[in-house]
Amino acid sequence: MKKETIIALLHGPDQPGLVSKVSSWIFDRGSNIDHADQHKDPQANIFFQRVEWVPSGPIQDEADAFKAFAQNELKMQAEVALSSKKPKVALFVSKIDHCFHDIILRFKANELNGTIGCIVSNHNDLESAAALYGIPFYHTPFEGSDKQRVEAQQTAILKEHSIELVVLARYMQILSSDFLKGIHVPIINIHHSFLPAFAGGKPYHQAYTRGVKIIGATAHYATADLDEGPIIYQDVTRINHRNTISDLIRKGKDLEKSVFAHAVRLHLNNRILVYNNKTVVFD
Amino acid sequence: MKKETIIALLHGPDQPGLVSKVSSWIFDRGSNIDHADQHKDPQANIFFQRVEWVPSGPIQDEADAFKAFAQNELKMQAEVALSSKKPKVALFVSKIDHCFHDIILRFKANELNGTIGCIVSNHNDLESAAALYGIPFYHTPFEGSDKQRVEAQQTAILKEHSIELVVLARYMQILSSDFLKGIHVPIINIHHSFLPAFAGGKPYHQAYTRGVKIIGATAHYATADLDEGPIIYQDVTRINHRNTISDLIRKGKDLEKSVFAHAVRLHLNNRILVYNNKTVVFD
Amino acid sequence: MKKETIIALLHGPDQPGLVSKVSSWIFDRGSNIDHADQHKDPQANIFFQRVEWVPSGPIQDEADAFKAFAQNELKMQAEVALSSKKPKVALFVSKIDHCFHDIILRFKANELNGTIGCIVSNHNDLESAAALYGIPFYHTPFEGSDKQRVEAQQTAILKEHSIELVVLARYMQILSSDFLKGIHVPIINIHHSFLPAFAGGKPYHQAYTRGVKIIGATAHYATADLDEGPIIYQDVTRINHRNTISDLIRKGKDLEKSVFAHAVRLHLNNRILVYNNKTVVFD
Amino acid sequence: MKKETIIALLHGPDQPGLVSKVSSWIFDRGSNIDHADQHKDPQANIFFQRVEWVPSGPIQDEADAFKAFAQNELKMQAEVALSSKKPKVALFVSKIDHCFHDIILRFKANELNGTIGCIVSNHNDLESAAALYGIPFYHTPFEGSDKQRVEAQQTAILKEHSIELVVLARYMQILSSDFLKGIHVPIINIHHSFLPAFAGGKPYHQAYTRGVKIIGATAHYATADLDEGPIIYQDVTRINHRNTISDLIRKGKDLEKSVFAHAVRLHLNNRILVYNNKTVVFD
Repeated sequence: MKKETIIALLHGPDQPGLVSKVSSWIFDRGSNIDHADQHKDPQANIFFQRVEWVPSGPIQDEADAFKAFAQNELKMQAEVALSSKKPKVALFVSKIDHCFHDIILRFKANELNGTIGCIVSNHNDLESAAALYGIPFYHTPFEGSDKQRVEAQQTAILKEHSIELVVLARYMQILSSDFLKGIHVPIINIHHSFLPAFAGGKPYHQAYTRGVKIIGATAHYATADLDEGPIIYQDVTRINHRNTISDLIRKGKDLEKSVFAHAVRLHLNNRILVYNNKTVVFD
Repeated sequence: MKKETIIALLHGPDQPGLVSKVSSWIFDRGSNIDHADQHKDPQANIFFQRVEWVPSGPIQDEADAFKAFAQNELKMQAEVALSSKKPKVALFVSKIDHCFHDIILRFKANELNGTIGCIVSNHNDLESAAALYGIPFYHTPFEGSDKQRVEAQQTAILKEHSIELVVLARYMQILSSDFLKGIHVPIINIHHSFLPAFAGGKPYHQAYTRGVKIIGATAHYATADLDEGPIIYQDVTRINHRNTISDLIRKGKDLEKSVFAHAVRLHLNNRILVYNNKTVVFD
Repeated sequence: MKKETIIALLHGPDQPGLVSKVSSWIFDRGSNIDHADQHKDPQANIFFQRVEWVPSGPIQDEADAFKAFAQNELKMQAEVALSSKKPKVALFVSKIDHCFHDIILRFKANELNGTIGCIVSNHNDLESAAALYGIPFYHTPFEGSDKQRVEAQQTAILKEHSIELVVLARYMQILSSDFLKGIHVPIINIHHSFLPAFAGGKPYHQAYTRGVKIIGATAHYATADLDEGPIIYQDVTRINHRNTISDLIRKGKDLEKSVFAHAVRLHLNNRILVYNNKTVVFD
Repeated sequence: MKKETIIALLHGPDQPGLVSKVSSWIFDRGSNIDHADQHKDPQANIFFQRVEWVPSGPIQDEADAFKAFAQNELKMQAEVALSSKKPKVALFVSKIDHCFHDIILRFKANELNGTIGCIVSNHNDLESAAALYGIPFYHTPFEGSDKQRVEAQQTAILKEHSIELVVLARYMQILSSDFLKGIHVPIINIHHSFLPAFAGGKPYHQAYTRGVKIIGATAHYATADLDEGPIIYQDVTRINHRNTISDLIRKGKDLEKSVFAHAVRLHLNNRILVYNNKTVVFD
């Protein structure tokens, strides 16, 4: 059986002895590091570390103690997670269902370290599918210009379900800056192009018109600037002159599914640090 | 021994019976098609074909007769080449030498169906390397604002060597619209990004700043609009947060070499048709 | 709306004028070729062609007439299909469910040109999932040494449902030579390695032990020689020293799903010809 | 300017506090870790670490002190290198020249952290090319059954040039077990298949006959068991039914060049640890 671990993600200005101080703290508490990975950004002079260990004492106490140590003594920003705790995730969808089915089946197969707490959609097309999967479904349609009201409703749903991560499975709606600030949890979006190429709408049509030979998909954290957030993961596939826009859409679906799932997996395994609108991914 | 073939590239408005007419013409002259590939653009209603055969009569006569048939009876645009004829290529370089060495070695190893007629450069850094390879080298520096004069000189060099293709191996100079029109031969450029992402200067720096997880290279025909010409071939490679700009440049070099060579190879094997600023590549 | 087409797959000894004869036959009946692709194996001297057209007369009559022409006049082996006819497919599964869900969802999303007629399994683990999808499920367990009896039962199921293709979604059972011969329909299997590396059982364990840096999946037609049938499609993904066997299995799942679906798609679009235990794939 | 660093590669049975002890030793000597990467093999219970730092004292003294510490106090196997020291490499070739030119040009472009001390060949085809590059060339032909004598001659050449790494750029000769043991330096070989598929001779012919859809290349350390040594790096490329054996060879050349160079680069950057006939690659 796999033992419960503490996973800490640290970052802050580089200073001498950080690796030594962190590893010694853990060793001195009678534990041993299972995995450690670090990175220095030589331009920004920032130090990043992901460290994972089986604590020798009560796990929550040890996690709290480490967090205090990292913040107070090392002056580092620290996120500390327990491997045993599976975050609750909210799945936002629209009508398109390939990422929807794919990510749900992966959660059900325990490929992803979390559970889907609820599904939120501006359409009710996938309500019955959600029912078959046994997941609460909320229909929050946009009628006219009541975006603010709908987003308030969505925020309440997220709170009610104690959601810790929102994933947009081709949600196709722009989130307001207020909503992004208000929910206090990260959001992962899948964009159906190899960003920064073909940002905005209808990227497969754009790619077809430009005549590129490769298309891609990009998973990124959503920010107020559409398609401009920190990139988590990307993948590509070849196309040729025989491929119609429908072919691009079909091929792209497979990319979108795997890129989206990969990014959600990295996040739920506490492998991502964000800075300067970029990501450090300890994989 | 491989027999001499005729290779025809046709395109024009679709009409009934084109495949039948072309293949019957060849069969009726006592020959047999070795390779044929065709494509219809359903949106533009254009038909494209590449057909290759061993003629039964004198090869140049047969080629001329086919061209007349295609233009006069089928009303198609036709380019007809002989496999035995190796076009002369001009290699434009600046100071960067990885694509320079790579493409020359491929020509020398008979990987590419042509010969390098001359090397043209705005710097003389690679003059001695060109001498070791035994290839004529022309130093055509840009001093001040005499671009027009230098391009006239370059045009003369291309004519003198009966050049049929210009390849820009990281030439790093913008070609004037007049030059492009005046030389009457196609130009293949290698751009060090996955176009349309990061067009323009310093694409690896742009990629680093944006935090993409994949970089690429793009070979395209040069047009008056910088980095906007028809894309021939693209390839990509993964990068991660540990990679500095130097790493991107190093990884990119390998991409640039192989993408550039692949595009030149496709062109010299008469596998590319251009329309609507896109390419049909029969590979 | 897409028009109904006839798709013919021909192969046989090469002879002069085949392209001309086929295209002229179609043109003379008042039709026009939409897509044509051909290939000559220079070593085996075999000619292969896939040709697709909208017939001008009743589609079944035209298809029959073409088949007679191809066999009697051209002396070619010919398979002729109608784009409007969606073959019925039998899905064989065991307990592992990732390819099972993936392929069913693709059929339901109309990504694949066919319908699932029935599911056959030696275990009943996926019976309730099959019921949710609304697909008939047959439990045909192997108890002791009654393989012959079970296979007879399975053959009867295939007949009852007029199955034209069997797909093994990680079925994990060896099919007897008698069964393969008796069912008269092709079988597509997905093997979880990059064949011919790691044939046989537990390929991910084999890959881990050998220390390879890339793993793969292979879709092939099943033959009496296990893992030796004609390869349809393969794909690979990178692994590294940090990956445990569980990681290989997880990464491999994604490969298996996409490689399996891709091969089934090619088959159902009549794009595959088999000879000499190899495939010609007109994609 | 980049500062001189010490790079240590450690491995041995796992024990509590290794990360802490190593990092504290370095910190206590007034230095700071620039890069550290570690790995635990959970099955074999072996700990691996690569650690790089700028020493505060004289670099060779610090390196020696660390090596003594690692071996005596930690009881770990340790290799310690200086970033400033460029190892001398011997290049073994036969007649095939693509990897030969490629690797030499990379050394000359400072892509690889070393210098080519000498070229050794059983043929003299590349002698004049070696002269143009200004690298000593030794012709050591095998005439009849004097393998032992030739290998003794080769061993002497390696000693004379203080060679620290041998790279086989398609050398096409089996090295005797005695030679491998006698030279006391590692050997990197490039095999032109995706091992373990198609080990032995003529792998492209084997791949063609089997009808695979992807070919590959593998760089590995040479051992007495041909093609069975620890794999360092692999890469692959797609092929299809149109590709002849010549096409496979041509496509394979590009793979061989880049895979070979990548493996040599990893080795010269002290990024590879070997155990259980596998590699840990800290890249």
